[in-house]
Amino acid sequence: MSSEPFRVGLLGFGTVGSAFAELLEERAAEIERFNGRRPVIGGVLTRSRGGFEEILSEADLIVELIGGLEPARDYLLRSMRAGRHVVTANKQLLSQHGEELFETAREHDVRLRFEAAVAGAVPVVRVLEESLSATPIERIHGIVNGTTNFILTEMAHGASYADALKDAQRRGFAEADPSDDVSGRDAAAKMAILARLAFGTPVHLDDVRYEGIEHLHSDDLEYARELGLGLKLIGAAERRQGGLSVHVHPTFLYSGHPLAAVAGPFNAVTVESEAITEITISGPGAGGRQTASAVLGDVVSVMTGGARPPAPPLPLRLIEDVESAFYLHLDVADRPGVLAAVTQVLGEHDVSIKSVVQRGMGERARLVMVTHPVLESSLRTAIARVGEFDFVRAAPRTIRVIEEEFV
Amino acid sequence: MSSEPFRVGLLGFGTVGSAFAELLEERAAEIERFNGRRPVIGGVLTRSRGGFEEILSEADLIVELIGGLEPARDYLLRSMRAGRHVVTANKQLLSQHGEELFETAREHDVRLRFEAAVAGAVPVVRVLEESLSATPIERIHGIVNGTTNFILTEMAHGASYADALKDAQRRGFAEADPSDDVSGRDAAAKMAILARLAFGTPVHLDDVRYEGIEHLHSDDLEYARELGLGLKLIGAAERRQGGLSVHVHPTFLYSGHPLAAVAGPFNAVTVESEAITEITISGPGAGGRQTASAVLGDVVSVMTGGARPPAPPLPLRLIEDVESAFYLHLDVADRPGVLAAVTQVLGEHDVSIKSVVQRGMGERARLVMVTHPVLESSLRTAIARVGEFDFVRAAPRTIRVIEEEFV
Repeated sequence: MSSEPFRVGLLGFGTVGSAFAELLEERAAEIERFNGRRPVIGGVLTRSRGGFEEILSEADLIVELIGGLEPARDYLLRSMRAGRHVVTANKQLLSQHGEELFETAREHDVRLRFEAAVAGAVPVVRVLEESLSATPIERIHGIVNGTTNFILTEMAHGASYADALKDAQRRGFAEADPSDDVSGRDAAAKMAILARLAFGTPVHLDDVRYEGIEHLHSDDLEYARELGLGLKLIGAAERRQGGLSVHVHPTFLYSGHPLAAVAGPFNAVTVESEAITEITISGPGAGGRQTASAVLGDVVSVMTGGARPPAPPLPLRLIEDVESAFYLHLDVADRPGVLAAVTQVLGEHDVSIKSVVQRGMGERARLVMVTHPVLESSLRTAIARVGEFDFVRAAPRTIRVIEEEFV
Repeated sequence: MSSEPFRVGLLGFGTVGSAFAELLEERAAEIERFNGRRPVIGGVLTRSRGGFEEILSEADLIVELIGGLEPARDYLLRSMRAGRHVVTANKQLLSQHGEELFETAREHDVRLRFEAAVAGAVPVVRVLEESLSATPIERIHGIVNGTTNFILTEMAHGASYADALKDAQRRGFAEADPSDDVSGRDAAAKMAILARLAFGTPVHLDDVRYEGIEHLHSDDLEYARELGLGLKLIGAAERRQGGLSVHVHPTFLYSGHPLAAVAGPFNAVTVESEAITEITISGPGAGGRQTASAVLGDVVSVMTGGARPPAPPLPLRLIEDVESAFYLHLDVADRPGVLAAVTQVLGEHDVSIKSVVQRGMGERARLVMVTHPVLESSLRTAIARVGEFDFVRAAPRTIRVIEEEFV
């Protein structure tokens, strides 16, 4: 059978764009063998060459790998309005203008695919959309930023934050300006997209509470090790108190937790629901060729005719104040009664202590605790009061802890 | 929009069938919301009620959950010839008559989905078919039988095989007749299906070399622990020597290996390819509701129009004799020169030793070794010669070892 080729218009020709063009050429014959049509690059738009209208007019599908909000948004909207399917890896755009894009895809009955926007080669979008359409999801959480996971892995082995970041940049795991990654903003954008898919609730990047890894102290990692904890940047979207909580925080995990073992620039996402218990998917989080392979997977999925755009939204209330266990680090004067005073104030605010490590260092002492789950607002109030004691020598530090222990 | 319901004819109403009917009813409204059509059960066939022809005539899709070869095969073929899409969880059938079923699906241009046949709720079929169509696969390996993984987990904690099996039966993780699971045959059927999907090569259940866990000794697990190894029943399909090797064996893994951490009745499958490095998917391997959710996922995927049947076959030569590292357990008389004699014979057959544990027990000694990778045929020849020594007091035992160490 010899049919028309399937023409892919490619917008953007950076690391991922060029890797995509290469991979598509390598796999074209095999894709034709099982699809009946051979995908070909029908035109490339870069800053210096190609015209959008011309590429659009000849394409069956547009792949957008420019990144950023504009002109990517404009190109995608125009492509869909012209009846073209689109594939994008643009998490900024989806997390800020997702509803407009989804709505346009529905209106014009075209496919809008974005596997590569969330976790590189890890097919979590596909799994959410299709496999799990059969079951209501309770929680998604995981490691969705490879740069910070690499840095935290190095820090766990004793490196300082600055050295680990430099190492990440040298190896190509972090960009020259790493602020989107280390601030947690990149992970927050991905969690906004996953939350929309899993819960049907439009979540804007600005709705996601996030916290990065720039302010972590390596001694926090050291104390945590004594408590049997490892540190990860965890993104979560979960049903809580009848609403939805979406957030990204540095989080301590007990060493038996499945996500604790995810090392280096890898991603891993766990999806929980009553009917399936839980599914975890892990793999490389970034890399041009890995991302390109996710993009090509989306192209193939459009060619086989699968995957409708997300359904119209069904909003849940966004919940900001949720319960969590916390790690609490206090730098105090080493004198009698300190621990008693601190635990009393904590107790008055329903903060109950699970474990404590105290260590004297001459005139000072470090008091490190892990609490039982408590509403964040209660913890913040308690901490503010603890901070008023004259024996407290530096601002108290807190980090979330995931409590569950696993076999 | 109010369209015709999407009518699902259900063949079989056991544990999975009834869980599927229940789940479909629970999720019908939500599926209608994003698909435009509401799925309904259009008829149920059991041993005592329903007529196949009548159910078929009114169905848009047939779900086969009878199991076994006949009449399941006949019903599926007749359904597809009548132009109906089909969904099945029948691994026996797919691993023995897969090509006939795939060919019929292609001929009549209908969908044939079987996510639930391979790893319960773990969506490995979907990931292989779609995400990874963009990249040639090098190897799939993993834990695809939850019953044996539960038993091995219990044995690792000190239980005997018999007690662990009884416990599995009591908890519903093993059937009254567990032979399909503990013999490795169930895992072999799943690997045959995965190998077909990943490599395009028709692999019949009879082509898969498999070995079960019935003959494992708990002292093997104990010695292995001293060597830093854990034991799993691993299925693998991998390119080797220009061909394809598909096999299932009890296998030792170093404790840092990602599959070593998979405990209890869980499944986990790792897919490796150059472009994606590796992706691991893990989740519950069995359970009526988990399997039902995979079946419903397939139904939804047919409703959304995705997923063509597998392409026509592109056979690779099946390779039987492949390299592996081995654990070797010898029960010998405790006298001078034994270790030297054994290692000399092994050396003559290119079997090189990586680590040894020897332990005297009065007049006897146990000699436990891990080899470097060696062709299985060479190892077998060497072992046969070692078995001829008069100081060898019981048949030598061997278990495969996966060598790779991970961060």
